[in-house]
Parts: sequence; structure tokens; C-alpha cells
Amino acid sequence: MSRTTARRGPGRPSDGEDRRGAILAAARAEFAEKGYVGTSVRGIARAADVDAALVHHYFGTKERVFVAAMELPFDPADRLPLVLAGDPAGTGERMVRMFLGMWSDPQFRAPMLGLVRSAFTSEQGATMLREFVGTALLGRVAAGLGLTDPLRIEAAAAQLIGLVVLRYVVQLEPIASASEDELVRLVAPTVQGYLVG
Amino acid sequence: MSRTTARRGPGRPSDGEDRRGAILAAARAEFAEKGYVGTSVRGIARAADVDAALVHHYFGTKERVFVAAMELPFDPADRLPLVLAGDPAGTGERMVRMFLGMWSDPQFRAPMLGLVRSAFTSEQGATMLREFVGTALLGRVAAGLGLTDPLRIEAAAAQLIGLVVLRYVVQLEPIASASEDELVRLVAPTVQGYLVG
Repeated sequence: MSRTTARRGPGRPSDGEDRRGAILAAARAEFAEKGYVGTSVRGIARAADVDAALVHHYFGTKERVFVAAMELPFDPADRLPLVLAGDPAGTGERMVRMFLGMWSDPQFRAPMLGLVRSAFTSEQGATMLREFVGTALLGRVAAGLGLTDPLRIEAAAAQLIGLVVLRYVVQLEPIASASEDELVRLVAPTVQGYLVG
Repeated sequence: MSRTTARRGPGRPSDGEDRRGAILAAARAEFAEKGYVGTSVRGIARAADVDAALVHHYFGTKERVFVAAMELPFDPADRLPLVLAGDPAGTGERMVRMFLGMWSDPQFRAPMLGLVRSAFTSEQGATMLREFVGTALLGRVAAGLGLTDPLRIEAAAAQLIGLVVLRYVVQLEPIASASEDELVRLVAPTVQGYLVG
């Protein structure tokens, strides 16, 4: 909580913190029940018994409510523009570096692993992860790179997801201890091939 | 159980079925407590209060006890020789076809997903999956192909693991509904590149 409450606007009283907490609790319940696509800022506000404008005031968008509710330390989608801009010859490498950099941060890894775990244990968890990954991440990659074949983006995502499963969940050596540079050299050409060709 | 008990030798009395069940129960406990590497046929026999020769009689090897205890319908390692033999130019394609074929079988998928789920939820589950994948699968691939860089084998494994996570757990479209042929075309060149170059 301290991580996310630190982001609230300056000078909000603890009353605001209560309302912010109520919004996040309502958001978690709404996302879990209705999935990412089925949840709206309006519905979260209703469930938290506050005005929708207050949700926008604290969080901006539904995606940012989701990121805060999941207690991610940052929004992966914020970082995508940096990856998608720039020399296309380096897109694969920038993508792999960004991805590994995020996962190397325990503040990011713990809630993300929780999200993936929930996809293994409940249909709702799977729906939430699917919609978030599909909409907030892969949809942005497709738009940013002008890609029309979602299968190739998903193949790149599969390479990266499998990498963190082996590195952080299965903890298989040598991939678990490999440096980020080694892993970039290993898989960036693959990601580049799928995304840029 | 009916699946695995159907494999017992002909003419075994139900007494044998009891002992077979006791061995499997002991094996599950031993694997969970000691991991794949730390478990021995002798230790399983001791825990089941039977002679080690009886474990060998029913299952042959520790790996087959593990496969039976996990209720896998077949041993993935049985299929690897077919993949590893033959024209090296087709190794990637044969590997992806075998892998997707196994995962398309719900009798294989359900226990394997359970094994992967246990890796997300317990350190022991992670150890068991790590040792089984490392020893029984990737070690065989390395030996069969004469590969000396385990990172490249693990990169290929990551591609395939990510594929089934997106297809069967996250159920992201279009990868969830894509035909096996489409997926082979998509990722076989990647697997080929890692394994054969």
C-alpha cells in the first residue's frame, strides 16, 4: 500500500487515502468478478460508493486502476513507447531488455507472478490476465509497430513468458543465473524476427 | 488410476493393485518431500514397505515411477528419440509437433498443468518440475543432439512453454485456436535455430 499511496496527489487528507483504498478494494472485486474488459471506471466508482470523477482524479484510466489494484510498481504500458520508438533494427533487443529489467525488480515480479498464478488456479484469473495482456500490452505493440499478424506478436510474447517461467518459477540453470546481457543475446534475435522480420 | 493400473502386468491379483497403489502413494510423498533428484527407487520401496525389486517390476525406472505418480498417460522421454533421430533439418519441426501433440491430449495436459501450477505455489513443486524437466527432458535433448550450450536448449524450451501457457492457461486468441500446423510454421524455425542453428 505504501508504494501506491505514495503516488496520491499532494495534500490529500487521510480521508482521501480511505477513499483511495476503497476504490482499489472495489476495483479488485470488480476485476475479479467481471474481468478486465467487463470492468468500467463507472462500475468501480459505484461499487466504492464514490463519484467516477474521483476515480479519474486518483488514477486517470481503468488501466491505471488495474495496475494500482495489482500493486504493480509501474505500468508496463508506460514503458512500451520507448521500446516501440527508435531504430527498428533494435526493437527486439529493446523489448527483451525492458521485459527482463521489469522482471528483475522484485516489486514487479511478486504481483505479476501472483497474477500468472491466479491464471493457473481460476478461470477469472485467466480472463483477467488474458484481457490485460491482450489489450494493454500486445494490442499496443501491434499498434505501435503497425503489425497485422497477432500470432507473431504472441509468439514473441510466448518466448518472453517462457523465459521468465524458467528463470523465476522453475529456476532452471543456467537460465536462472544468466546475466541479462546473455539472455538478450540469446532471445533478442528471436523477438526481433517475430516483430520486425 | 484406471489409466495407470491398466498398464500393470497381466494376471496380477488385486493384492498387486494394492501394492502398486501403495508404491505410487509413497512415490508422490517422496518426490514432494525430496524432489526428483533426491528420491530413489530404494527410498520409495522403503516408504511403501515393499521390496525395491517390486518397484522395478512394476515401473522399471525412477522416471517411470514419476510419470505414473504424476498420472501422465505416457512418458515424454519415450517420444524424444523419434524427435532427435532423423534429418537434422527437421528437428525443430518434429520437436514442436511432438510437444503440441502431447499438450493437445487432455490426459496429458491436466496432470502437466497441475505440475506447473505446483511450481507456482510451492518451492517443492518448483524443484520437482525443475529436476524432471532438466534431467528427463532437456538433458536427453542435449545428449541426443550433442549440444554443449544448455542455454540454447532452455531458450527453445522457453519458446514452447510460453506457447502452451498462452494457448492453454491464458487462452489468448488467436494462439488458443490456431491449428497445430500454424503453430509449427510459426515457431519451428525458432526451435530449429536454437537447437541446430
